[in-house]
Parts: sequence; structure tokens; C-alpha cells
Amino acid sequence: MKILITGFEPFGGETVNPSWEAAQLLAGQQVQGASLVVAQLPCVFAKSLDALAAAIQLHQPRAVIALGQADGRSDFSIERVAINVCDARIPDNEGAQPIDEPVIAQGPAAYFSSLPIKKMAMHLKAKGHPAAISQTAGTFVCNQVFYGLQHLLCNTPVLSGFVHVPLLPSQVAARGGPSLASMSSETLAQALLCAIEVLVQHLQSDERDIKWGMGANH
Amino acid sequence: MKILITGFEPFGGETVNPSWEAAQLLAGQQVQGASLVVAQLPCVFAKSLDALAAAIQLHQPRAVIALGQADGRSDFSIERVAINVCDARIPDNEGAQPIDEPVIAQGPAAYFSSLPIKKMAMHLKAKGHPAAISQTAGTFVCNQVFYGLQHLLCNTPVLSGFVHVPLLPSQVAARGGPSLASMSSETLAQALLCAIEVLVQHLQSDERDIKWGMGANH
Amino acid sequence: MKILITGFEPFGGETVNPSWEAAQLLAGQQVQGASLVVAQLPCVFAKSLDALAAAIQLHQPRAVIALGQADGRSDFSIERVAINVCDARIPDNEGAQPIDEPVIAQGPAAYFSSLPIKKMAMHLKAKGHPAAISQTAGTFVCNQVFYGLQHLLCNTPVLSGFVHVPLLPSQVAARGGPSLASMSSETLAQALLCAIEVLVQHLQSDERDIKWGMGANH
Amino acid sequence: MKILITGFEPFGGETVNPSWEAAQLLAGQQVQGASLVVAQLPCVFAKSLDALAAAIQLHQPRAVIALGQADGRSDFSIERVAINVCDARIPDNEGAQPIDEPVIAQGPAAYFSSLPIKKMAMHLKAKGHPAAISQTAGTFVCNQVFYGLQHLLCNTPVLSGFVHVPLLPSQVAARGGPSLASMSSETLAQALLCAIEVLVQHLQSDERDIKWGMGANH
Repeated sequence: MKILITGFEPFGGETVNPSWEAAQLLAGQQVQGASLVVAQLPCVFAKSLDALAAAIQLHQPRAVIALGQADGRSDFSIERVAINVCDARIPDNEGAQPIDEPVIAQGPAAYFSSLPIKKMAMHLKAKGHPAAISQTAGTFVCNQVFYGLQHLLCNTPVLSGFVHVPLLPSQVAARGGPSLASMSSETLAQALLCAIEVLVQHLQSDERDIKWGMGANH
Repeated sequence: MKILITGFEPFGGETVNPSWEAAQLLAGQQVQGASLVVAQLPCVFAKSLDALAAAIQLHQPRAVIALGQADGRSDFSIERVAINVCDARIPDNEGAQPIDEPVIAQGPAAYFSSLPIKKMAMHLKAKGHPAAISQTAGTFVCNQVFYGLQHLLCNTPVLSGFVHVPLLPSQVAARGGPSLASMSSETLAQALLCAIEVLVQHLQSDERDIKWGMGANH
Repeated sequence: MKILITGFEPFGGETVNPSWEAAQLLAGQQVQGASLVVAQLPCVFAKSLDALAAAIQLHQPRAVIALGQADGRSDFSIERVAINVCDARIPDNEGAQPIDEPVIAQGPAAYFSSLPIKKMAMHLKAKGHPAAISQTAGTFVCNQVFYGLQHLLCNTPVLSGFVHVPLLPSQVAARGGPSLASMSSETLAQALLCAIEVLVQHLQSDERDIKWGMGANH
Repeated sequence: MKILITGFEPFGGETVNPSWEAAQLLAGQQVQGASLVVAQLPCVFAKSLDALAAAIQLHQPRAVIALGQADGRSDFSIERVAINVCDARIPDNEGAQPIDEPVIAQGPAAYFSSLPIKKMAMHLKAKGHPAAISQTAGTFVCNQVFYGLQHLLCNTPVLSGFVHVPLLPSQVAARGGPSLASMSSETLAQALLCAIEVLVQHLQSDERDIKWGMGANH
């Protein structure tokens, strides 16, 4: 059984992306009998979904966790839902900046994550890792990949979803202005292993995800 | 032509709700030939959608703007999308706290707002009102009402959507801890009139909404 | 009895400054027998203290409240202490940007406000105005004026201090990025009158300020 | 040459304090010829300064860095100034909650840090550690210790100051509500070593601290 972890290439002028730094630390590891494989995705609207599809085709994973960088978030932020819109605040790595375009023309308005997001969040917090459910993955390439991932796998047994992760300390240090939250790639990789452990157990069970209140008032 | 503005009753131990305070200030006003009518909704999962449907049945509006309170938000926060899930962090006004239940069983994962959200946001900012597009209305009664509203009207020509508004100054003053953002009901009502003005113009035109980048990186 | 309220000219590329907008609304008003007089200060390290001294010399006030703009703060933020350092993140209105220079060479490290800051904060909150005690006025011209004000009046019976106020809605609307908190000049003026009311009562009594916990853990 | 690093015992219901976790990781290490010694301070207004004085008496350090926990801060937060007031938002570990009491009766209003704070901040950022100058250490036991430390050593050649550090990931994970920023004790200890390295070099030179703009507008 393979679990595919994707991370993004750097974007927005950065030279590093925490999602890819963390993914690389997990490449080749075994978690409860599952093998972790990784792939880097371009931060390019026109190419990210092809790269994702190719990685899935290559590895034939049993589950996919796509990772992305979220400036200012402070925890392992498990996304609940992907929406069918691209509304880019900044250009992607090839200069494209789509505004209010669908990810998939005629696709549904949204897809929910099919990962056991509540089990993952609860286990992470129990093990000392800051974690939360996020109700929005934004409208940039991260959301596009999340939506495209769910669309691609929606009629398959492969579970999939998206997690946003904090900046690396070095990224924060290089910026001016008030410091944003950060997490080292080692801390991040430990949290990721913890989440994958729950995911593999879930895959080997017949259970549904638990119901555990982690919503947002607004 | 009628425009229906809904606000919520107080919840979470408050004695006032900015959404209803603002709505009341607009009741009976005329905006470019449209009459503003208002309705208060209970902050109760089991009753809010019935009250909303009754108000729509009564007034037969040409458009509906549902308003809700968002602790800590600092602007006129125009929601883009409602999702088909209730995940309550706190009990509603009758003690119910649904977790990971759909708003509408078998409903689609999400509905987008059918209001001209970008026109509204751009006009508000041009007129000096802090405004933004929000990518999540949360998972409490506000999102439920937003989702239920879009579901009810999705095959009709009635435009509808949701706007979150800041706390009132008096609510912030009554709390301990660091002060959250606030907006007076008068300031809020002015912003609302500004948004309705654009909405009425939109209703009287054949135009689509504009494309103006107001997305979120994550 | 006169109370002098000072506000700053716009700075940092803005065309308006909430501190001066609010001050102007109060000019000439009477509060419990006290007359409110106002003065605008330049946002210029080399000139602000001369302008302040001239206004004090002119009006011979019984108390002085200096106001300043604080981007992102959401309440009537009553400063506790001014420190003897200028460390400018941005140039002032004449291009000066002192770094780690004292406000007053050989001056003490800090001066505390001599206003009844706890009475003011408590009364404001009781009347529905978001208010707080702030432990730092920063290191820009606001702190310079606050320090210089306390230095000038430290051996006199004139009470004095500094209050930071939020941005105006129009300032926030004109910016990109996430909306910061704002307060309308009318709301701000009401809060200011409320604070002055307490101040005048304090001046007419023999009481000390109350002790009411409004500190910060860090 | 000894450098004394102090950390606090847990407080506020926590079972761990990042300042002490980090300090312990450094105990006994050598940095450029200096030996690091550590001491834990009680989070008790009535005892913290005695414990601090005893540790200084015991170790006769050439410099002292006192560390404290700052919920929500995301960086290595080097304090600039300690003020002569205790205004406790919460009770200390023995239930005392002084409000508007001086740390030292008849002491000056404030003391500045005598550490090379700008050199430390610049070097930390250059090495990839999020760092900032903070203009307030609050009004709780951290500020009390910082003020008492500077008071004790103000006529000696011993350099001293205070640094606030983020919560540990496990502390954040154990809380409800939105996640605050965190930093692992290993990441924190690395930053601390980096800062101490600069400090030792500074002690071995005749230089003053650099002037590097790290102030706050407000």
C-alpha cells in the first residue's frame, strides 16, 4: 500500500516551500505497512493538475495527501472542502493570475475531503501537534490542486485531501514586518507521520470518520 | 421591487446582534426604487430555515441578503460560498449542536453566492467602506442559513447571498481580553445601503458580475 | 478650565489621520465645565515637540490628551508609558528616520501617563466603548510626543497622557490585503468625550486613579 | 566566563514552560569559551527576584538572559524595556495578583535592556531564526523579573535582559480555540545559542550595539 504525499515548489519569490521540505523528509518511509511516496507539484495553474495526475498514475496510491504552504497559519491545518473557483491574488510561477475561473468547467461547486479529517485532527492534538480543521483552502493553486484531486478521484476508492502547513522559520526570518508563525520541517514531518498513521489505520478499518466538533462560528 | 435583508437574533450569551441592529435601520427605506424589507431569523438550526422561507414567501423579494455576526472580523465580509455541513462549536439558542451533519441531505457540497459580490466589494471600497470577499461562512447557523437560502432559490431568478458583519462596539466593550474589531450599527447600515445600491443597479442591468481579484492565497 | 486635545497630521502616505479628525469634532465643546481646545501636531521628529509646547503655552490647559493613529488597533487604546527612544520603522513627514536615539538626551528611561488611565478605561467600557490599556506607544513620533509631553509637564500639576486610536474606515477601505480594524470619527469622538468626562471629574476630585486589572501577561 | 540563562516554572495551569525547556537544553554547554548555566525561577511575585538574585550570586555570570513564555508570540522576542509596574491579569503561582504596584518602590519608571539587542536580532534573522525587538514585556512576573534584574545589575558591568519565547507545540495542541503560534524546544534552543554567540562576541569586544531599525509605529 502506497500513500502519496505531494508538496509544492517555492512560489511568491520564496526559495523554499515547507510543503516540499516536509514531504521530502518522509520519502521512502514506512508507516504501519504503508510506503510513503512523494511528488513535487509546480505552482502553476496550467500544469499542477497534470503533474498531480501523473504522480497518481505512476504510484497508484491508496490515499493522497496534498500539502501546501499557508503564510501565517500556525498549525497542521487540515482542509475540509475545495471550491470550484480560481481567484489568484498573486501571479503563479508562470505569471498566470486567473480571476473567478472554475477549476473544472461544469464541475460541482465543491468537493469535501475524503480523508478522515476529524480522526487525524484529534490524534494530532492528542500527540501534542497543533492541528485544526480549516473551512477554506483559499482560491489559489492550493485550492485548485485540492479540487482537481478530489475531482479526479471522486469515483474511486482512493482517499484524498489537502493540508496547509505553516511557513518555515527561515522564511519568516527573511521577511520584514511582524513575524508570522512558523514550524520547522522536522516538527512538520513528525506531525505528518502522526496524521498518516491514523490514515493507514482508517484505511485498514471499515469505520467512518469520527464526529468531533471542530467547526467555525464564521 | 423588494430586497429582503435578514438579521439574526442574539446568540452565544449576547443581548444584541449587529446583523439585526443594522437590518432594522434599513427597514422601509427605498434604494433606487427598491423597497427594503427585513426579517429576524432565530439562531436555531431547527428553525432558521423555516423562518427564512416564510419571510421569502411573505415578501416575494427580488433579492435576499442574509446578514450574520462574525466575531473578530473587521469589515463588510461578503461570503462567496456556502457548504453543506453543520459543525457547531457552540450550542444554538435551543441547545442543539450538530456535528458534521448536512444542511440538506443529498444536497450538493456547496452553493456559490448569486449576488454580484465583486461589484459590491469594489463599490464599497471605493466609497470608503472596509469590505472583502470571504471564502468561508463557517459551519454554524450562518452557513446553514446561507446554504439553505441558496438551495431554496437556486432554480429561481431571485439573487441571494450572505454577508458577515463585525461586532458592535458595545459587544466588544463588554468582553474581557484583547479588544476585537467593531463597527457601529450606523456605519454598518451605511455600508449596507451602499452594497444594496450596487445590487439594485445589477438587477436592472443584464450584466454579469465583474472579475476583480479578491481571492485568498490559502 | 481647558483640556487640550492634540492630533497628528496625516503620515505614511495617508491623506487623513483619525486622531486629528476626532480632535476637530471636539474643538470648542464644553465637558462638565471644561473647554476643549485642539492642536494639530506635525508628524516630524524635529518639529512635533515644539508645536506641542507652543500649544500648551498658548492654551495653558489643565490637562492634555495627545492622540495618535495606530494601524490595526481596534479600540480606544490608552497608553501607560512613554519610553526614551526613537526607533523609526518608516521616515517621518520630512524624511527623518532616527534609530535608537533618545527623545531627550539624559532623560529618564520612561515616564508613566499621569492621566487616570484606569478610571478612563473602566468608564469607557461601561459606556459601551471598546477600550484598553496599552503597555507600549511604539517608538515612532507618537511615543516621542508622549515622552516629550510628560517630560515637559512632569513637575507641573497638569495631567497628561496619550491615546492611540484605530484607523478610519476610509483608510482601511483604500488599502489592499486583509482589512484592519477601524472606527468612524463620530464613534471615536463619542469615546473621547466619555474619557474626558471622567478626566474632568478626576481633576475636580482629590482621588487617585483606581486600581483595576488591565495589564498584559507579556 | 559564565552566561546565566533563567527560565520560569509552568504557570497559568500549564505543566510545562518553554522558557525552562529551552534553558535546560543549554545547561552546561560551551559557546565560544563561555559556559552556560541555568536557573529556574518561580512564577511568584514574592519569590522570583530572590531566586534570581540567588542564582546571580551563585554563578557570578558575565551576562544574564532571562526567558519567559509569551502566548501567541511567534518569534524570539527580545525585550527592549522593563517598566516599574505590576498589573497582573491572572494570579501568580501562589495566588497573588498585584495591580498597579511598583516592582521596586522608588525605582525609576523603566530600565532598558543592556544586552546588544539589535546585534542579537540581526544575527538571528540572518541565520534563519524568526526574531524581533519587543517594546513591552507586559506587566506580569516576566516584566517584574526583567525590571528586577536590570535594577540589581544596573551599576555593574554584567549585561542583562529578557527574551520572550513562543509556546511549545504541545501547549498549543492541548488548548481549544484557534491555534496560537508555537516553536519546538529544539528550534528555540538553536535560536538561543545563536543569540548567545553574538552576546559572547559582544562581551569580548569594545563595541556598542549596532543601530538597526526594528522599532514599532505604535
